[in-house]
Amino acid sequence: MSTKLEQIYEGKAKKVYKTDDPELFIVDYKDDATAFNGKKKGTISGKGVINNRVTNFLMEKLEKEAGVPTHFVKELSERETLVKKVTIVPLEVIIRNIAAGSMSKRLGIPEGTVLPIPTLEFSYKNDDLDDPLINDYHALAMGLATREDIDTITTLAFKVNDYLKTFFAGIGIELVDFKLEFGKTTDGTIILADEISPDTCRFWDSKTHEKLDKDRFRRDLGNVEGAYQEILHRLFGE
Amino acid sequence: MSTKLEQIYEGKAKKVYKTDDPELFIVDYKDDATAFNGKKKGTISGKGVINNRVTNFLMEKLEKEAGVPTHFVKELSERETLVKKVTIVPLEVIIRNIAAGSMSKRLGIPEGTVLPIPTLEFSYKNDDLDDPLINDYHALAMGLATREDIDTITTLAFKVNDYLKTFFAGIGIELVDFKLEFGKTTDGTIILADEISPDTCRFWDSKTHEKLDKDRFRRDLGNVEGAYQEILHRLFGE
Ligand SMILES: Nc1ncnc2c1ncn2[C@@H]1O[C@H](COP(=O)(O)OP(=O)(O)OP(=O)(O)O)[C@@H](O)[C@H]1O
Ligand SMILES: Nc1ncnc2c1ncn2[C@@H]1O[C@H](COP(=O)(O)OP(=O)(O)OP(=O)(O)O)[C@@H](O)[C@H]1O
Ligand SMILES: [Mg+2]
Ligand SMILES: [Mg+2]
Repeated sequence: MSTKLEQIYEGKAKKVYKTDDPELFIVDYKDDATAFNGKKKGTISGKGVINNRVTNFLMEKLEKEAGVPTHFVKELSERETLVKKVTIVPLEVIIRNIAAGSMSKRLGIPEGTVLPIPTLEFSYKNDDLDDPLINDYHALAMGLATREDIDTITTLAFKVNDYLKTFFAGIGIELVDFKLEFGKTTDGTIILADEISPDTCRFWDSKTHEKLDKDRFRRDLGNVEGAYQEILHRLFGE
Repeated sequence: MSTKLEQIYEGKAKKVYKTDDPELFIVDYKDDATAFNGKKKGTISGKGVINNRVTNFLMEKLEKEAGVPTHFVKELSERETLVKKVTIVPLEVIIRNIAAGSMSKRLGIPEGTVLPIPTLEFSYKNDDLDDPLINDYHALAMGLATREDIDTITTLAFKVNDYLKTFFAGIGIELVDFKLEFGKTTDGTIILADEISPDTCRFWDSKTHEKLDKDRFRRDLGNVEGAYQEILHRLFGE
């Protein structure tokens, strides 16, 4: 059944609701767009619908075809999805195949440089501190995760990358980088949570290198809605 | 013999000279002090003499008592030391026992918080980029070090910490954090290089928590020379 009960969180991109099942939440995707930790604000019309469908499509595939456990349970409507409730591990887990964004800036690697190995980063999920980059020792010392959590998350994140990189290449898209969030279910299992969408990934057209993701909004490149629709089109042929 | 030949590098704190032995350099410690990547400049009178003696004393102990290979060969004068030539691995290797400085600021951990585990950090040694924090994947992807180099450096850095923490505790000093540099000799061996001094360590008096290191210069706390002399005094009883 899963009746939508009271809202327990409103984030920048989604609302989260309780349900009558204590182990399940409903996430509700908004069109609100933010960048630079909320300093830039706007709306991307239709984004919530697209991100909901894209996330669910990719999580189902990851679950079935790559053996990655996810929070996905059932798409309920255009913008709403039933998910397993987790306690989010306060790490932003980033995998990069091609240098871009903050990595290019911090490390002086020109945007577009193909990295010789996929690069995993953890950021401490803390808006007040602007989600600073950390390493395993910081995560352990701050009690953000255990050694076992980190190992599980690392293995799963690379599995997600291996699967998605190949999948997107097949539809003419380079998976440049992406951010994942993992959480712990009540029984302590670590699963993939949150979303996988043009908000949280960098997608470049393989041929033209055109950006098909939130960088169009961040950098005022125009045709933001068109980019999100193009991703939907490549995935669903619509 | 080791005749001092032409200077090959002048850094912010030391000069480096060739010798008639192609495997050996002479380092010459200056009184120049800089902070915030050279943005703050000054002089700490007598610093070069103290840092030379402190570094050599600690490196000899590490070599003999902790089995850590170092570049130290022989003290030649007040400010000059003969060292093994290495190619520096472009990583600043930082170990922290107590939160302070950039860690406190970036991660919101109050200065003075004892970390539950010693925390190792790598920064990419690059002044133009302000020595940004990186993780193992970045170091590998950028070709700064190999997996084996990183493992060796990590093991040695923790050995240095274990030894020095205990040693300094014995003379009433808390070893808060410190920065090491490692290098490769011509035959490919990784050894500890550069210096270990109040310029590169945070030392707090165990009882009063008074700072006995370069933070007195960075933060304009006064009695900078006195702090350096106090370290010499605790080590040599002079
Ligand atoms: N299965 C889940 N169970 C519990 N919380 C979840 C789950 N999936 C995602 N979340 C959390 O729900 C929130 C979704 O909202 P949104 O993505 O808009 O947040 P945000 O603005 O990105 O901010 P932040 O992630 O920093 O809280 C996030 O906090 C996310 O970590
Ligand atoms: N055994 C060694 N062989 C070769 N180079 C060394 C050795 N030990 C230290 N060095 C290098 O010699 C230089 C010492 O100078 P100094 O410490 O003043 O440099 P710095 O101003 O800190 O700048 P940087 O470390 O960024 O070059 C450093 O570049 C250091 O990495
Ligand atoms: Mg979010
Ligand atoms: Mg130096």
